[in-house]
Amino acid sequence: MATLVGVDDPRDPRLVDYTDLTDVSLRRVREPAEGLFLAEGEKVVRRALDSGYAPRSLLMARKWWDGLRDVVEPHDCPVYLADDVLLEQVTGYRVHRGALASMQRRPLPLLDDVLATARRVVVLEDLVDHTNVGAVFRNAAALGMDAVLVSPECADPLYRRSVKVSMGSVLAVPWTRADPWPGTLHRLAELGFSTYALSPDPAGADLRTLEIPDRVAVVLGTEGEGLSSAALAACTDRVRIPMAAGVDSLNVAAASAVTFFALGQA
Amino acid sequence: MATLVGVDDPRDPRLVDYTDLTDVSLRRVREPAEGLFLAEGEKVVRRALDSGYAPRSLLMARKWWDGLRDVVEPHDCPVYLADDVLLEQVTGYRVHRGALASMQRRPLPLLDDVLATARRVVVLEDLVDHTNVGAVFRNAAALGMDAVLVSPECADPLYRRSVKVSMGSVLAVPWTRADPWPGTLHRLAELGFSTYALSPDPAGADLRTLEIPDRVAVVLGTEGEGLSSAALAACTDRVRIPMAAGVDSLNVAAASAVTFFALGQA
Repeated sequence: MATLVGVDDPRDPRLVDYTDLTDVSLRRVREPAEGLFLAEGEKVVRRALDSGYAPRSLLMARKWWDGLRDVVEPHDCPVYLADDVLLEQVTGYRVHRGALASMQRRPLPLLDDVLATARRVVVLEDLVDHTNVGAVFRNAAALGMDAVLVSPECADPLYRRSVKVSMGSVLAVPWTRADPWPGTLHRLAELGFSTYALSPDPAGADLRTLEIPDRVAVVLGTEGEGLSSAALAACTDRVRIPMAAGVDSLNVAAASAVTFFALGQA
Repeated sequence: MATLVGVDDPRDPRLVDYTDLTDVSLRRVREPAEGLFLAEGEKVVRRALDSGYAPRSLLMARKWWDGLRDVVEPHDCPVYLADDVLLEQVTGYRVHRGALASMQRRPLPLLDDVLATARRVVVLEDLVDHTNVGAVFRNAAALGMDAVLVSPECADPLYRRSVKVSMGSVLAVPWTRADPWPGTLHRLAELGFSTYALSPDPAGADLRTLEIPDRVAVVLGTEGEGLSSAALAACTDRVRIPMAAGVDSLNVAAASAVTFFALGQA
């Protein structure tokens, strides 16, 4: 049963999960190390709880409690109630959508379990930008992809900004780390997946006219450089989105949306 | 011939084009009223000049001059050279990519001129987010759309953030305001365009199986609400992207990428 606890001291040690939220370089280390992630806003908090993640605690302005009460109350955790000034002092920013939940991470599933029944898989190599990671997950969920694999160096799907931009999809779409890298790409091939290295290379197969096999993994590279040569070499196919002459490539989120649509599962 | 001018006073009136760049609500009013827009970073400055826009002035750290000299020198404008501290004092932020250009806006082209030879047109109704506007332009350029129309209330494609996210595409893709609104949608129909209201409505035609006519305008609505009922009523067709059950819609930039790809012009 959740317990409501009023707080009024920004240095209250019970609020440590919520400190310095704007310090990305600190939080991206702290959160995995401490086994937590942050869900922000009523919709995402709700989705995190619906997906079976356990809350460590919540922190919110009083007015948000009624909207979350039904999903939070069954959990045995404190709900810290604070005013807007305290919220800003603790987190370092104006928490517009008022409600934050510190959620317990779960062990990542095994690769073979994630892939067992999957036919359409997304693989992300070393994306740096949490917004892009979240956007790719959102597109994957909407356009019928079954699972996402992220390389060991890829930005954390459970980082607050990723979770938010994904609209909570990172909590619903099955995903795990692709470790070892790029060895996991060979494992995908063993399991019968065609692995599509998405690249602007004009020698690649045209996504529009490609014959789509039963099991496909779409492999997307980092925002600036694209896929590493090791990843390219480990893929079974090189695939390109047909583009207008003289134009820079699409950003990785847009390229993912186009590709997922073309795979035609949704 | 460009003139190099060292500056060391953040209140120097010659730098007024560059003040308070982080104040979005101020700048979004000031820039159209003063007839300017800001290009940021070597690549975008280059593209603005290549597209025939005239610079009012440039402001940069000394080290960026050599990389821009060839394109800037022919223009009769001052190039203000400042150190990083002054740049931050004037603009209000750390200018990482160093070079800013204040560019002269041009009168917007007439609707019928923009549409004269266009077969694939994008229409944006009341988008609020400059990032989304820029992303849609980038997708439009990459995926072979011929022109963009923006409703009178839609966020400014020439706002600094739009220009940047579009990778300068807003300077290359023909565009103008769709005024009157939504009357311009009727004008499109008169010119033989099918106007596709993109919407999650399950009664809409499936984008995947739609017969694509010779002239199409894709009409995209605001991030939260989607298209207004007046815009919906003024369109010839309602079209939906097939999506997985129970998932929120794609964001407008991703939806645009999928739709432009499906129209198949690139």
